[in-house]
Amino acid sequence: MKIAILGMGNVGTGVYEILQENKSEVCRYLDKEIIPSKVLVRTLNKDRKLDIDDKVLTDRFEDILEDQDIKIVVELMGGIEPAYGYIKRAITHGKHIVTANKAVIATYGKELEELANQNGVFIKYEASVGGGIPIISTIIESLAANKIQEIVGIINGTTNYILSQMTRENLSFEEALKLAQDNGYAEADPTSDIEGEDAAFKISILTSISYGINVPSEIIEREGITKVQKSDIEYASELGYKIKLLAVSKKHGNSVEIYVHPALVPNSHPLASINNEFNALFVKGNAVGELLLCGKGAGALPTGSAVLADILSVAKAIKNEIGNDSKINDTDSNIEIKGIGKSQYYIRLQVIDKPGVLGKVAMIFGSYGISLESVVQKGRGEISVPLVFITHDIEKEILDSALKEIISYKYVENIASILKVEGM
Amino acid sequence: MKIAILGMGNVGTGVYEILQENKSEVCRYLDKEIIPSKVLVRTLNKDRKLDIDDKVLTDRFEDILEDQDIKIVVELMGGIEPAYGYIKRAITHGKHIVTANKAVIATYGKELEELANQNGVFIKYEASVGGGIPIISTIIESLAANKIQEIVGIINGTTNYILSQMTRENLSFEEALKLAQDNGYAEADPTSDIEGEDAAFKISILTSISYGINVPSEIIEREGITKVQKSDIEYASELGYKIKLLAVSKKHGNSVEIYVHPALVPNSHPLASINNEFNALFVKGNAVGELLLCGKGAGALPTGSAVLADILSVAKAIKNEIGNDSKINDTDSNIEIKGIGKSQYYIRLQVIDKPGVLGKVAMIFGSYGISLESVVQKGRGEISVPLVFITHDIEKEILDSALKEIISYKYVENIASILKVEGM
Repeated sequence: MKIAILGMGNVGTGVYEILQENKSEVCRYLDKEIIPSKVLVRTLNKDRKLDIDDKVLTDRFEDILEDQDIKIVVELMGGIEPAYGYIKRAITHGKHIVTANKAVIATYGKELEELANQNGVFIKYEASVGGGIPIISTIIESLAANKIQEIVGIINGTTNYILSQMTRENLSFEEALKLAQDNGYAEADPTSDIEGEDAAFKISILTSISYGINVPSEIIEREGITKVQKSDIEYASELGYKIKLLAVSKKHGNSVEIYVHPALVPNSHPLASINNEFNALFVKGNAVGELLLCGKGAGALPTGSAVLADILSVAKAIKNEIGNDSKINDTDSNIEIKGIGKSQYYIRLQVIDKPGVLGKVAMIFGSYGISLESVVQKGRGEISVPLVFITHDIEKEILDSALKEIISYKYVENIASILKVEGM
Repeated sequence: MKIAILGMGNVGTGVYEILQENKSEVCRYLDKEIIPSKVLVRTLNKDRKLDIDDKVLTDRFEDILEDQDIKIVVELMGGIEPAYGYIKRAITHGKHIVTANKAVIATYGKELEELANQNGVFIKYEASVGGGIPIISTIIESLAANKIQEIVGIINGTTNYILSQMTRENLSFEEALKLAQDNGYAEADPTSDIEGEDAAFKISILTSISYGINVPSEIIEREGITKVQKSDIEYASELGYKIKLLAVSKKHGNSVEIYVHPALVPNSHPLASINNEFNALFVKGNAVGELLLCGKGAGALPTGSAVLADILSVAKAIKNEIGNDSKINDTDSNIEIKGIGKSQYYIRLQVIDKPGVLGKVAMIFGSYGISLESVVQKGRGEISVPLVFITHDIEKEILDSALKEIISYKYVENIASILKVEGM
């Protein structure tokens, strides 16, 4: 069975390698070989890690579109354009799509699924979330008979690597970012990862397949990890927590609470021990209860493994002459999209070290009905000292009002950090 | 789409409940309703938790065989007979099979898969291992393009519950077993669980789907948890370990190392924090790397969730008019089946408290080339004291020879415990 691969970067190379290395496994599953008969690249003459026949390489997308033997187009370019345009054209030419493109699926997934259905072809995107972790097929297939209630996960490997290194090696954010870039875990422009955009794409995709609700990633409440400081990690550790960038989507009746936010996770919680480039996802269904899936969230081979699972599943359908007849999971317009609901928070203030400051701040919290779970005061003897609080559950608006009053108090210099505490 | 359910015990009730509660999810997936139109029970007139129409209940299996409208037979009786006979007859009558029966699949899986293939019907058994965890479909579908290299898991909920309670509540094995029985986590006759037979069935099934090798569960090296004592759990804890009943299957070239054995797992390892009725499985593939899946390994609803995933997958195939054309994963007769290979061990001796005993025992270990990682000696002042060792990697035969010499030493009363230490 012939396929085309768009893009021969990291993941494309992984897919190519797996097809060579694990030919016998592929043949056993499908009873056929998968042959990448065309590979779209930007530059034809370039040194490549892999030995790819020149006849296979092309820089013209039309070569792929016009090749009637190619049944599956595997898009591994990333980014919106030209990937999105290529996918649309391939679909209208009757080709099945496998993609690892979270930006395209989060932004145009519904439109593309409808287009694919009209054209009787499949569009599959297991590798768009969680690298090698089979989270999409688990939700769609294995939990098909469940009402999905909740997804909580670490779904960005770059930020998890940075936070892990900050924690283990006592690095600043900038130092850990540099290390991540040096080791290939962060891109030259890391904005999308560290600002939480990448995680927002992914939680949008998971929300869509779990609840049938399209939440554009732009409207998802999100905060990245750029403001997380070394001292926050130290205080969190002292209080029994790890700081993780969590992506959360919870269904409460007719509303969905969805956000990406750095959060304190109790050490006893399994997510606290997911480090470096690993990803982990909790899925809660009303029949299965809680399921946890962990694995490598990025990398050529793990992501390639997920891409190949999709290719094989589509190839089997082609072999069995099955077209895509799945129903689009329709947006329920009555569903309200919310940000973070009632939650515990971690607050770090910088204050002038005067007697009574802690008491005054605690009193202000109290006057807003905010009770405190923990307080850490340290560094007496310096003029400016940190004051760390963990609150009990409170609405963010109320917390903001209290903090507005607190910051106006003359001995409070600034609010250095506001992080979520994930109650699990 | 009409199905029959054989057996209305715990899991059967769960499947029935999910079909009622999550009707809309089932319909969305399949575009059809799943109707259990016949349910085989032993006793027709009996008070049931569920309100099942009398016309649905039958005590004659032939009613189901002869009903042409029933396409899928869901076997949830457990045990070899009559389940095995019913499954065979249903297959030869052209009915697809979904089963949660690990004993039947581990023992007759290959024969039944061949029979199913000959008859063009599917036989699916996701619920036979790991309750609600989609481990079978992950290995067969999501990791289809991987060479599976290793499976390490906690796959028996009863023993994990007992060991967790012994650890947390400082109970003896007998007390924890009683608690498990009182709380519905252990059966009146718990032999199969506590002796490791249940886990052996399951690791046999996973080995078969992962490597295409049929290992009869009887030949799997196994030890249950009946000899694990409170003091072993305490020493393990002191040394930074938890004791877990592990099922392991590792492919090394042309051999498979397969066993079920209580083992010390380092606290830092994710399996150490899997408690009570939860199950967890590590799967290692050459492309995906390590994947970890955790969830409830038993219970009506989690297991029912897995049964329904299979029912839906078969129902979709029926709808699409696809027969079973999968290839049987053939036994490679050149594969050698081995028990535990080189490993670290935990040894607890009971010795007479005399000067020089520790030195003498350590010398005997040394003379066999066995080096020691940790030694704990305590309780001085009593006549009989425990002496605990953790060895470095060693072949079991060599350890046994050393222990034979050690036990012949006059101040050594007995070898109280030999547990595996799982190096991860």
